[in-house]
Amino acid sequence: MIDPADYGLDNLPFGIVAVDGDRLVPAVAFEDRVVDLDALVGAKLLEEESLRGASTLNAFLGRGHSVWSSVRARLQALLGPDASGHERAAVVRASRPREDVLPQLPIAIGDYVDFYSSLEHATNVGRILRPGAELLPNYRHLPIGYHGRSGTVVLSGTSIRRPNGQRKPPDANAPTFGPSQQLDIEVEMAWIAGPGNELGRPIDADAVRGHVFGYVLLNDWSARDIQAWEYQPLGPFLGKSFATSISPWIVTLDALEPFRVAEPVREPEPLPYLRARQPWAYDVELELLLQTPRMREHAHPPLTIARTNLRGMYWTVAQQLAHVTSNGATIRPGDLFGTGTISGATAGSEGSLLELTFRGTKPLALPGGETRGFLDDGDIVIMRARAINATHRVGFGEVVGLVVG
Amino acid sequence: MIDPADYGLDNLPFGIVAVDGDRLVPAVAFEDRVVDLDALVGAKLLEEESLRGASTLNAFLGRGHSVWSSVRARLQALLGPDASGHERAAVVRASRPREDVLPQLPIAIGDYVDFYSSLEHATNVGRILRPGAELLPNYRHLPIGYHGRSGTVVLSGTSIRRPNGQRKPPDANAPTFGPSQQLDIEVEMAWIAGPGNELGRPIDADAVRGHVFGYVLLNDWSARDIQAWEYQPLGPFLGKSFATSISPWIVTLDALEPFRVAEPVREPEPLPYLRARQPWAYDVELELLLQTPRMREHAHPPLTIARTNLRGMYWTVAQQLAHVTSNGATIRPGDLFGTGTISGATAGSEGSLLELTFRGTKPLALPGGETRGFLDDGDIVIMRARAINATHRVGFGEVVGLVVG
Repeated sequence: MIDPADYGLDNLPFGIVAVDGDRLVPAVAFEDRVVDLDALVGAKLLEEESLRGASTLNAFLGRGHSVWSSVRARLQALLGPDASGHERAAVVRASRPREDVLPQLPIAIGDYVDFYSSLEHATNVGRILRPGAELLPNYRHLPIGYHGRSGTVVLSGTSIRRPNGQRKPPDANAPTFGPSQQLDIEVEMAWIAGPGNELGRPIDADAVRGHVFGYVLLNDWSARDIQAWEYQPLGPFLGKSFATSISPWIVTLDALEPFRVAEPVREPEPLPYLRARQPWAYDVELELLLQTPRMREHAHPPLTIARTNLRGMYWTVAQQLAHVTSNGATIRPGDLFGTGTISGATAGSEGSLLELTFRGTKPLALPGGETRGFLDDGDIVIMRARAINATHRVGFGEVVGLVVG
Repeated sequence: MIDPADYGLDNLPFGIVAVDGDRLVPAVAFEDRVVDLDALVGAKLLEEESLRGASTLNAFLGRGHSVWSSVRARLQALLGPDASGHERAAVVRASRPREDVLPQLPIAIGDYVDFYSSLEHATNVGRILRPGAELLPNYRHLPIGYHGRSGTVVLSGTSIRRPNGQRKPPDANAPTFGPSQQLDIEVEMAWIAGPGNELGRPIDADAVRGHVFGYVLLNDWSARDIQAWEYQPLGPFLGKSFATSISPWIVTLDALEPFRVAEPVREPEPLPYLRARQPWAYDVELELLLQTPRMREHAHPPLTIARTNLRGMYWTVAQQLAHVTSNGATIRPGDLFGTGTISGATAGSEGSLLELTFRGTKPLALPGGETRGFLDDGDIVIMRARAINATHRVGFGEVVGLVVG
């Protein structure tokens, strides 16, 4: 399913996998295999005690950038062409075919924040929900975000049960309770925090490398009808909290370094605490695919319904990091920060069905004459991402979910 | 400071304390002492392995109501008049003066939700912030809430640093960044979750006893200027996330049983999933006190600036529990759920300075000619709560915070 070339030496994403039944070990994905880091530490080929017997990556994340980089460099040496015979043999003993292991949530998530950092998404949503007040006055001044439910962040592959909830169409007298009729997705990525800060000590926008371990894919499942009725005045709550899916392999910031690109122009210029000296946009291509039960019956592969790119986001990881700690709030190893829905400026680059179908009023045409405004039971949603240029290639794998009724 | 009679046999609140330097043990507060539960388990006077060597109460919270109740009954027997000589001696060995131990955060908090369940508070806030749209149309249909930052929930006594942030007065052209000029508090209580549920399995409104371990006091520190600028469209974020303080001792639902009272009338009647067969309001008196540096200099004790009661809340713990899981979301042992600001219908029963001073425009008069619209550096805020009737008395202690610049 996932091209082994996406997980080459350029990448080496970190995760947690179950081996031999239910024993959890830290691992890196390498080509079509995974390499057990607990085994490498045990074989004294890797010196990093935070990986020994670890069932989450949190302790390793707490160790900081110099440790992350030296472990990655060591792994590149062990897995690369210049490894010794002894090293090769040990790596073979520590390796398993990727299909023989079961990926797990790689981190115990403390707090989960979801930003709203695509100007195009915010504009599209405003146009649909608040005609005349499309982009709110604060948007170009600060990275809007809110806290989501960390306890319902689930691993890719977890089935998503259609949530019940209250919804009230504008023309109804009173709300009713029942299954959401507007189940949607949001194409996002999410960064994962490293060591963190002390209470009362903000983190500088330029300190990204020391505080951000890497990125995963994130599907922010959303029940639009529940959300529309509940969200004023305190923001999204049960319309989001039923499930958020992430991909299993964390792609490190070091692996993404070749894909840093210029940031979009911002007008007005952000306040000083939101200015970083370096650019922190990343050129990562994302793809959203949908497969209905009928498509599966007819052996029709998942259909790409949107393509977008992380590079255009109005607010970067540097600004999100500075903003979220600007009031002195702490972040902790394993905290998760969603980018917000990644939508581009062109048709077909929107990262949600809300936008792609204008809240269901312009349904997508699917093979065999089917249409979709929002998701039906049995639908499978897949998000993939990859960064590629002339010299480097890094894949994020995918985040997949099946909707069940 | 705290009356030993508030921590009598009726109460026996649970917490975690540091003894002998930095060794953490589970404990109950009893009169002017604390009783080390790890020591009682070690002495084989208490059979509950989840308390052995526990540095948080989470495992105990995961055990469920029948265990909580039997441990409490056993402690009432050990600490009561009918204990044997052997039991008394062991309890004495396990006890220390309350002032000799350092209370800790009693739980590792997974998710923190803050509700908005006082109709009077929501009406007051609407009147101040949204004249003409005082109570939003959804309010009487569902318990509005949002997720807060669990990582910045701190123990009573932690100093609160005035947060920096963006704020834009309505007549300014652009926001500025700096220390909040409208630092406020919110008088709340918070319930703490027990065993929890499986993803996709809502909890019934009548299942409170099985899922709610007990209550603490909570001060939801709020920077009104930051909040006002950032909160649309996704709700409060940095105006709240810098700190939330809780009291150290968890008063169990069993201890509160004598204080259950009839719920306020609701019109319209809530949807069926929000109807419990029993009443779940509690008659708990709360008091908000303020002491400025000048008052301290003049040896003036903290001044009571508001008195309110938990019993009037529009939405109860039963409805909050049913609502938050109605979409299939999980709750976990140690999850924290704030009631929202507790405001009454009469002058002087409002649970925030925003309300008490009408956003600073009608400052409080303090001893010595001082006034306060919002908090100044050096101010100390204290919240206390107690439930008392003809036969029972249960105190919550207090949650205290000093504002530092």
